[in-house]
Amino acid sequence: MMMGQGFVVQGSNGEFPFLTSSERLEVVSRARQALPKDKLLLAGSGCESTQATVEMTVSMAQVGADAAMVVTPCYYRGRMSSAALIHHYTKVADLSPVPVVLYSVPANTGLDLPVDAVVTLSQHPNIVGIKDSGGDVTRIGLIVHKTRSQDFQVLAGSAGFLLASYAIGAVGGVCALANVLGSQVCQLERLCLTGQWEDAQKLQHRLIEPNTAVTRRFGIPGLKKTMDWFGYYGGPCRSPLQELSPAQEEALRLDFASNGWL
Amino acid sequence: MMMGQGFVVQGSNGEFPFLTSSERLEVVSRARQALPKDKLLLAGSGCESTQATVEMTVSMAQVGADAAMVVTPCYYRGRMSSAALIHHYTKVADLSPVPVVLYSVPANTGLDLPVDAVVTLSQHPNIVGIKDSGGDVTRIGLIVHKTRSQDFQVLAGSAGFLLASYAIGAVGGVCALANVLGSQVCQLERLCLTGQWEDAQKLQHRLIEPNTAVTRRFGIPGLKKTMDWFGYYGGPCRSPLQELSPAQEEALRLDFASNGWL
Amino acid sequence: MMMGQGFVVQGSNGEFPFLTSSERLEVVSRARQALPKDKLLLAGSGCESTQATVEMTVSMAQVGADAAMVVTPCYYRGRMSSAALIHHYTKVADLSPVPVVLYSVPANTGLDLPVDAVVTLSQHPNIVGIKDSGGDVTRIGLIVHKTRSQDFQVLAGSAGFLLASYAIGAVGGVCALANVLGSQVCQLERLCLTGQWEDAQKLQHRLIEPNTAVTRRFGIPGLKKTMDWFGYYGGPCRSPLQELSPAQEEALRLDFASNGWL
Amino acid sequence: MMMGQGFVVQGSNGEFPFLTSSERLEVVSRARQALPKDKLLLAGSGCESTQATVEMTVSMAQVGADAAMVVTPCYYRGRMSSAALIHHYTKVADLSPVPVVLYSVPANTGLDLPVDAVVTLSQHPNIVGIKDSGGDVTRIGLIVHKTRSQDFQVLAGSAGFLLASYAIGAVGGVCALANVLGSQVCQLERLCLTGQWEDAQKLQHRLIEPNTAVTRRFGIPGLKKTMDWFGYYGGPCRSPLQELSPAQEEALRLDFASNGWL
Repeated sequence: MMMGQGFVVQGSNGEFPFLTSSERLEVVSRARQALPKDKLLLAGSGCESTQATVEMTVSMAQVGADAAMVVTPCYYRGRMSSAALIHHYTKVADLSPVPVVLYSVPANTGLDLPVDAVVTLSQHPNIVGIKDSGGDVTRIGLIVHKTRSQDFQVLAGSAGFLLASYAIGAVGGVCALANVLGSQVCQLERLCLTGQWEDAQKLQHRLIEPNTAVTRRFGIPGLKKTMDWFGYYGGPCRSPLQELSPAQEEALRLDFASNGWL
Repeated sequence: MMMGQGFVVQGSNGEFPFLTSSERLEVVSRARQALPKDKLLLAGSGCESTQATVEMTVSMAQVGADAAMVVTPCYYRGRMSSAALIHHYTKVADLSPVPVVLYSVPANTGLDLPVDAVVTLSQHPNIVGIKDSGGDVTRIGLIVHKTRSQDFQVLAGSAGFLLASYAIGAVGGVCALANVLGSQVCQLERLCLTGQWEDAQKLQHRLIEPNTAVTRRFGIPGLKKTMDWFGYYGGPCRSPLQELSPAQEEALRLDFASNGWL
Repeated sequence: MMMGQGFVVQGSNGEFPFLTSSERLEVVSRARQALPKDKLLLAGSGCESTQATVEMTVSMAQVGADAAMVVTPCYYRGRMSSAALIHHYTKVADLSPVPVVLYSVPANTGLDLPVDAVVTLSQHPNIVGIKDSGGDVTRIGLIVHKTRSQDFQVLAGSAGFLLASYAIGAVGGVCALANVLGSQVCQLERLCLTGQWEDAQKLQHRLIEPNTAVTRRFGIPGLKKTMDWFGYYGGPCRSPLQELSPAQEEALRLDFASNGWL
Repeated sequence: MMMGQGFVVQGSNGEFPFLTSSERLEVVSRARQALPKDKLLLAGSGCESTQATVEMTVSMAQVGADAAMVVTPCYYRGRMSSAALIHHYTKVADLSPVPVVLYSVPANTGLDLPVDAVVTLSQHPNIVGIKDSGGDVTRIGLIVHKTRSQDFQVLAGSAGFLLASYAIGAVGGVCALANVLGSQVCQLERLCLTGQWEDAQKLQHRLIEPNTAVTRRFGIPGLKKTMDWFGYYGGPCRSPLQELSPAQEEALRLDFASNGWL
């Protein structure tokens, strides 16, 4: 499940809310066929209802997912108490044939999976970790601290705070930026894991603006455009996501160029 | 489309994010069969992608919806600029066989449909109004003001600010509370429309706490529990929504009792 | 204390946080001298600490304030619970020689004076009302409803929701816009108080954009610039507030011109 | 200015908004007298207006402050653009006889000093660093990255993210928790500066809950109560801050005890 060891499909940048159920399964199935057997495939299977999430998780496992990454339901965020979220994830983990990774991404969902819920859920035998995209490193440190007795993996959800997350005890990352600067993000991981913090810091610094550009600043259209530049296939976004304007493209390019990546 | 003149299915309180596509259509179909022909049926057809929204809207029209109420897509709220939302709604309205009502509900979506987008969209021949659930009456007044030249209906999206919305120029409401206190909400409308503002004010005051109780405070579980109390069928919620605790039920009951409704 | 019956100095637009204590008193003193005796003078006396607020309130009363408008302390907003705010206002009201008006302005303070605190405080014999600038008309209605048994005056804190506030039971307003369009704001009040709601609505509509322009959109620099245009003395702002750019001035002008005021 | 090398008075936990101008100066003066000459004294001199901030800064320097820490003005946060803040700090730094440290503390002020403003201000010869209390380590890393060519010190504003801040390039910290666990916070600094990251991580983990307890969770009343427990003088808070309830005290104690500090 850790970066460099596998692949994630249908995280927030996979446009999963725009895909039909069968498309979602097909993405998993095709990714599985394309990947070497020893590479882990982590698939985003979250839906709004518990029942739909269970069904999607089971189906994704059947077509090849090694683990399921389950985003917090969010439309009724005012009612998503710790108790409700614990109930939801427990049900999903009980019924999932593959391990479950919690996924908290407040920029999209408008809610943080509360720390007390994470701690409770970390004790479930089929819940193996969390992808935390909120960027609050104090919170990430606290989660590491309070789940230490479990075999629970904390993963940084974005490349902007990857070094800081490793420093505080995270064991990996799931980073949109790795779609574009994959080897650099893996290099940053290696520098952290081998204790080369000065070099890690230099590299991390140069990744912050590119990372913000393909996430918060320009979103999926920015990520896809950059993938095109770097020789991958980014392709179009589904509507209502819109292509970048020429001025936005220019600003995006500058965020990479000024850090020496273009 | 106006309160007292019709019914809405699959607004936010209809738990639409928890329903499958076929369930969503069945709800519309059954409601159509149950309703007298002269009663308008407004159906919530919003999905995250433009394409899915178009398909759902067309299908709902086929099974009997008289108009479609389309909530703003929200998972990628950081990219939901006016331009993106105008594009989305224009496409949906172009292809919808029935009139479209915009739907802005920031408590659930984390975004307001911007006023400038509403004004632009009000000029589309197949967009006939907006349900605004945000409760910002200054904004509602501005929308009325700037769409005055169009035949565009502004509907209050909650009973807590219904009187104020009528006072500022709204022509109706779509109110969760009407599931419980239907005749009272209709009575409030009549008092407003006939200029009996003093009586309207007294009635409105007594509806604020019950309304907050079944929306922001206790959400759908509160609404359903109250429906049971008032002799309707509320029934269970789908998970991850949780039933109310006894203490919450007590507080809910008090919000109705202290205003003379129980 | 009601609009049309008096004047307010050192509300948020009076730049009170930029004035020294002696300047604050001098403003009150000079305003008192300039006003006819039968005109009420309401003076903003809020400070961060309870003790400073008491001292400022007493001093302002000595130099001629008829009542004190006391903004919520806000720097430690995380600790400003209902209990803390009730304690603060009770102490101030106990020691003030003149009546106290509560003042809630979340755009500046980042906190709303909670409704339960307002209801408790409304029972204090020396607390006579609240200026609510938040614009949440549901909340305003609830405050009117729950303080009805007291002789407690609810005042709209901005002209954008003045009509709606009257409709729901407010008895007056304290409006920045009245510095520029004073007679129009008073006219709106009269139309509301005499039940001429259609004319009131038309006038209210034309005041929303100008009001937003001199408050949320362009702030005090916008208000002062507009005062200059309308033949009053606006004058410079204290730093760090900055003058408007030419483009901002143009946009400000348009907000008045497009509604027929320039 | 760096932790372990000096002392700060009148940061947010010094209750500076509750002190009169003369009290603020007296605090600085007395601290200067109590401190060894070689210990740096950093004094919070921020006020809402530029003029008052300049005067306070000059006066504090006269009574012994070695440097001034200047919080962002915040009452008119809607108008505190980068341009306004750059103007404010430039004026203060131009006229201050001692070096200036920027201070961004969004939990109290409701605004972040924008990164572009920090970068511009870092070029001022009399602005030597920033205390950033927001806890966004991505932002802190970006500030380090973009001010690298200047001699500009980035200081973590809270002990919860101190290790992460060092890891990403901060050179010190100004931490409320150091009032209680001073040697432990200094120990954490040493472990970071000497590259003992594993031990640092263990220590950091045990400081997160105590730190949150004396800041966000229980604020100044919590900090003072804890100081009493640890043999320092915490003393009472000024009103409107309220003492902790017995239940809150118990929770506070648990946050320290469960991490082995009590």
